[in-house]
Amino acid sequence: MATPVTPPRGMRDFLPADKATREHALAVIRRSFAAHGFDEIETPVMEDAARLHSGLGGDNEKLAFAVMKRGLKPADAAAAAESGDLLALADLGLRFDLTVPLARFYATHRAELPTVFRSIQIAPVWRAERPQKGRYRQFVQCDIDIIGESGLLAEIELITATAAALDALGLTGCSIRINDRRILTALLAHWQVAPELNERALIVIDKLDKIGVEGVVSELGGLGIPTDGVAETLTLIADVGWNAAEPTPPVWLDGDAYADLLALRAALPGVRLVFDPTLVRGMGYYTGTIFEISHPDLGYSLGGGGRYDGMIGRFLGTDVPACGFSIGFERIVDLLGADAASAENAVVLVYDKGTDPARLVALKRTLVEQGLRVRLEQRTKNVKALLERAAGAGYGRYAFVGPGTPGAADLEFRSLGG
Amino acid sequence: MATPVTPPRGMRDFLPADKATREHALAVIRRSFAAHGFDEIETPVMEDAARLHSGLGGDNEKLAFAVMKRGLKPADAAAAAESGDLLALADLGLRFDLTVPLARFYATHRAELPTVFRSIQIAPVWRAERPQKGRYRQFVQCDIDIIGESGLLAEIELITATAAALDALGLTGCSIRINDRRILTALLAHWQVAPELNERALIVIDKLDKIGVEGVVSELGGLGIPTDGVAETLTLIADVGWNAAEPTPPVWLDGDAYADLLALRAALPGVRLVFDPTLVRGMGYYTGTIFEISHPDLGYSLGGGGRYDGMIGRFLGTDVPACGFSIGFERIVDLLGADAASAENAVVLVYDKGTDPARLVALKRTLVEQGLRVRLEQRTKNVKALLERAAGAGYGRYAFVGPGTPGAADLEFRSLGG
Repeated sequence: MATPVTPPRGMRDFLPADKATREHALAVIRRSFAAHGFDEIETPVMEDAARLHSGLGGDNEKLAFAVMKRGLKPADAAAAAESGDLLALADLGLRFDLTVPLARFYATHRAELPTVFRSIQIAPVWRAERPQKGRYRQFVQCDIDIIGESGLLAEIELITATAAALDALGLTGCSIRINDRRILTALLAHWQVAPELNERALIVIDKLDKIGVEGVVSELGGLGIPTDGVAETLTLIADVGWNAAEPTPPVWLDGDAYADLLALRAALPGVRLVFDPTLVRGMGYYTGTIFEISHPDLGYSLGGGGRYDGMIGRFLGTDVPACGFSIGFERIVDLLGADAASAENAVVLVYDKGTDPARLVALKRTLVEQGLRVRLEQRTKNVKALLERAAGAGYGRYAFVGPGTPGAADLEFRSLGG
Repeated sequence: MATPVTPPRGMRDFLPADKATREHALAVIRRSFAAHGFDEIETPVMEDAARLHSGLGGDNEKLAFAVMKRGLKPADAAAAAESGDLLALADLGLRFDLTVPLARFYATHRAELPTVFRSIQIAPVWRAERPQKGRYRQFVQCDIDIIGESGLLAEIELITATAAALDALGLTGCSIRINDRRILTALLAHWQVAPELNERALIVIDKLDKIGVEGVVSELGGLGIPTDGVAETLTLIADVGWNAAEPTPPVWLDGDAYADLLALRAALPGVRLVFDPTLVRGMGYYTGTIFEISHPDLGYSLGGGGRYDGMIGRFLGTDVPACGFSIGFERIVDLLGADAASAENAVVLVYDKGTDPARLVALKRTLVEQGLRVRLEQRTKNVKALLERAAGAGYGRYAFVGPGTPGAADLEFRSLGG
């Protein structure tokens, strides 16, 4: 008897139609990034366990899949049982993001890379999260990073390339919310938050969209933070937009950071840039600008990034400026429809059993040389079901190959109406 | 101090120039296969450990990287130490080939797939082999398979698509050696090899290239196989080519299988097909035709495949005809040179420190819109080293952006001579 067969929990198979959409989107993104002078690199899916668990990955470190040492002996398991350190049995782990591998890659290859290195990484990552709708244990990230550039040129190039990729994918209407960690720091100082509570306070502010001003005030109070004036500032902030400094800069605004954001806006005339002084981004490693892609129809972001100057150099033992932007590929691919033009060029030849294989393949070759994508299908009793499956797989036209059909020119193609 | 940083043992980072060559080759292969009516699918990199170790993978099963269960307790390690079954601590593993995942995928999705399913899988696999030159622990396989077609049409389509991919990659001069397991079985029967020794005898014959006729005779003798006439047959066989049945079929030749091979040759006029009656292919699951890509300059094959009718249905509990062809991607990519045309379109703009970032990005955007790939580099003291690195990364031209350069039309591009 057959046993039930499914992919591992939280992981997905991709059937032909979905895989084609994914590969098309990846090719578009890859081309956009490369045209803007970024260079793609690749690292192995596994990294040394010690490096994955070095503290750069924040909470994601706990979600890493651990790969067991080869050639373990029972005594090794006994020792792990004794010490309680089960991760001692693992020497490798699957990466949970592309930033830790990038920091390791940069440390390995710095001498071979340009002074300012613009990287593309398009690759899967793995996290042992509780599977839920839209959250998977294997998913693709599309990251661009600029390492070695401390000036705003990095932010400008990253946002330009990302906006170009979104355009090329046909995702219109996106805007980019932008802020700076220094503005958040000034805001917290204005509220007299003790610096050791900054990270926890930021986590609360990050929930503003979900819990509202009242919720933020209440949770900040719960942390022991004085909340006088917090509700008032948050309400004012919500509407400032690019007029934050009009008529005079408010006390909570970091002037240098805001001047940088204005310079970014001036340098990016083609991008819809929205200043959002309460934008936080989750990761604690950000040090300057932070940004996030918004779509008017969606309640979640389609990607984001920012400046993280302290991190890339960690494996080198030296500080290196860095800034990155990551597209949330799984969310974006869900928004894309099938490509109608490519369906028109994908044809099914339905042939009768017993047709000479050499003739079929010659016919197929002729059509392939004309630029068509060709699938051969032997005629079954239920031709309708066969054609519906082909339409679902992205094929747009079909023709019957009768025993008397002499050549490709005589085929009568009909639409699959898909 | 910085700690030494390298990728995990036997695994590789890819720097921009190599990554570009790889992605180009993958895109060419993907396009060739798709144009011939194959549909790409994707499965997760991990499979359930029980499925990976079900016996379909032969010796490769021993080389699988094991992924530890999440949330293990010390008691679990103690139990594993006690039982000696350390793999009880792993519930998942990284795939060691693409055939076991394909069998699992087909069992999961059969109802959604066409009657005859032509799959493409282009993806990495992992094997914990002892690393050595040209052998890696993570490497890419490019497989096409046809499931559900028992006739020669499968072989014809697979060989046509593979030959087209090799052509598209610019790999000229390849030939395809072909044989049939039934011919090998007839040959062993002619030598009166006991059927239970067939697999071990085939492993010996597979080494003919390396150990010669004498070596084969000696090793077969070592297995207790009578070797009268073996040297004679092997010497005769070496020269038969497509004249194997002239003037009359030799007693060691399986007539049905040979008729199939002649039919394949007739159906594949554009492919250099070489009949090699001693071609074995390593995997024990092959049941009919087997084939291998040869290149005149190389002592190893560039890929291979064959018919394996018993295997795909294993997870379904039913027999399903199947035939596949796999390109050895890592070997092929080593044969490809950098793409000169794409270097010509990749340009470096060398700018002085302090140049307005907005102006640089506007300049870059103009060039990108003209179809160029653009990298910005700040001028350093050693401009020569900077330009050499860019040439190594696939850039073909450069220009200086002076403070007085008004626009893209005024840039003077020079060749990087790479």
